[in-house]
Amino acid sequence: MKTSLTGKSTSVTIERHAPFTIIGEKINPVGNKKLAASLLASDYEYALDLARSQIEAGAGILDVSVGASGVDEVKVLPEVIKLLIDEIEVPICLDSPNGGALAAGLEVAPGKPLVNSVNGEEKSMEAILPIVKDRDAAVIGLTMDEDGIPNDAEKRFSIAEKILERAAKIGIPKEDVIIDPLVLAIGSDTNAGIVTLRTIELVSQHLGVNINLGASNVSFGLPDRHTINQAFLGLAIAAGATCAITDPLRLTPTIKALDLLLGRDEYAGRYIKECRRRAAKVE
Amino acid sequence: MKTSLTGKSTSVTIERHAPFTIIGEKINPVGNKKLAASLLASDYEYALDLARSQIEAGAGILDVSVGASGVDEVKVLPEVIKLLIDEIEVPICLDSPNGGALAAGLEVAPGKPLVNSVNGEEKSMEAILPIVKDRDAAVIGLTMDEDGIPNDAEKRFSIAEKILERAAKIGIPKEDVIIDPLVLAIGSDTNAGIVTLRTIELVSQHLGVNINLGASNVSFGLPDRHTINQAFLGLAIAAGATCAITDPLRLTPTIKALDLLLGRDEYAGRYIKECRRRAAKVE
Repeated sequence: MKTSLTGKSTSVTIERHAPFTIIGEKINPVGNKKLAASLLASDYEYALDLARSQIEAGAGILDVSVGASGVDEVKVLPEVIKLLIDEIEVPICLDSPNGGALAAGLEVAPGKPLVNSVNGEEKSMEAILPIVKDRDAAVIGLTMDEDGIPNDAEKRFSIAEKILERAAKIGIPKEDVIIDPLVLAIGSDTNAGIVTLRTIELVSQHLGVNINLGASNVSFGLPDRHTINQAFLGLAIAAGATCAITDPLRLTPTIKALDLLLGRDEYAGRYIKECRRRAAKVE
Repeated sequence: MKTSLTGKSTSVTIERHAPFTIIGEKINPVGNKKLAASLLASDYEYALDLARSQIEAGAGILDVSVGASGVDEVKVLPEVIKLLIDEIEVPICLDSPNGGALAAGLEVAPGKPLVNSVNGEEKSMEAILPIVKDRDAAVIGLTMDEDGIPNDAEKRFSIAEKILERAAKIGIPKEDVIIDPLVLAIGSDTNAGIVTLRTIELVSQHLGVNINLGASNVSFGLPDRHTINQAFLGLAIAAGATCAITDPLRLTPTIKALDLLLGRDEYAGRYIKECRRRAAKVE
């Protein structure tokens, strides 16, 4: 299954046996006070800096969230996207729970963008899927519903099925829905990892769609989070994940190594290039 | 399938859904001139230092190789083991291609040790398996034979089957054979990773025995080898590997993170303990 996205001039195809796609997560004011303050002041230069550094580090797509206290997302999301696309060529992933903000952002986003996200709640599917369909965008579907995030892979799988059926019903093809099986903090639930990995396997084997991973939640509250996040990527990719919303500045080396080990990087060309790029940054 | 090994006082059980077993690789003169020189001089204190530091870093078993130019393995292997077991409680993995050295080492090794290794060559099986049987030890079986290491998972699987059959014929039970599917350098063969991973899957699914990984070869000749080795461990454990001969000083954090993510470390107790241990070392 191929999910093809386009930005102003470059396109990205997410698929199982191709190099893994990194969706840069850093344009998000949650946990970034400097970004929150600059968005409030309608100063978008810092967001542009975050875009540049993530693309340089290997992001194929940029997630853009402007959700912070006091920020009018309906106004700010399209403004940030407009400024970004003056310079940025890659596809945009519009990240908001706010349908109005998504619609406004989708109007100015170039090419075929990605929407983050819909979930299995009735009100979410009713609000978000028509906006995605109108714009012929793709969408990330989270495996949660009115009852929260099930602690059970079969239930998460059922929600994925429901989102795909509902999307199909209004004309969004299967390849334009990327399922995110969600991952909770392993520090508070020993089963958090295996439930997510099992959901990835089920979705990959039975639905065949692309699978996104929010790769950083898993380590929440634990020491040396990076080691856990790195390890989780390998397990998730082995299970069938094809893209991740994550920090390319930290995780690109591991992702390039995984591509290499899975036979997706002939003569280690991209892995070596990434090592050289990092070495040049350090000097 | 459980492979139970014992040392002077501690025992280790290698099995699929238990914490991953680290076999410390550092008592090996290949690439360690200081160790080669000290063995030649019959000075075994440095080997003892390497034993201590690896156990502290999480090795459950210690591989012991004394193969270096000028070293009489038949004399030195048992001498080193005798010195080690004065202090070291964990099971020993005797590492030599020399049947005489293995037999001499097995005489002094306590408990139920591991032998590294037999392979699918007739002369190897004839020389090594009877020694293993006489001592009631366990053995690592490498998936190579007279034609070398096949670049094909099905052929490596057939060699694993052959070693297990031959072992069974002389009375070595299946659980005392650990298959090592071997890994070649990914830098010179893009398929090296997937052939090994596919062999692990085949052996795990169809033979059910424990699977060892020599986790460091894969990155030979490439920059930032550690990132590749870390990534490979995750893929190999997902495929079914249950132990690895590797450097615990470098790879224990990743292995503890993988155990945690696979639900084998309740409340992250061992992961957090490992983080604290490392933090205390740095101070």
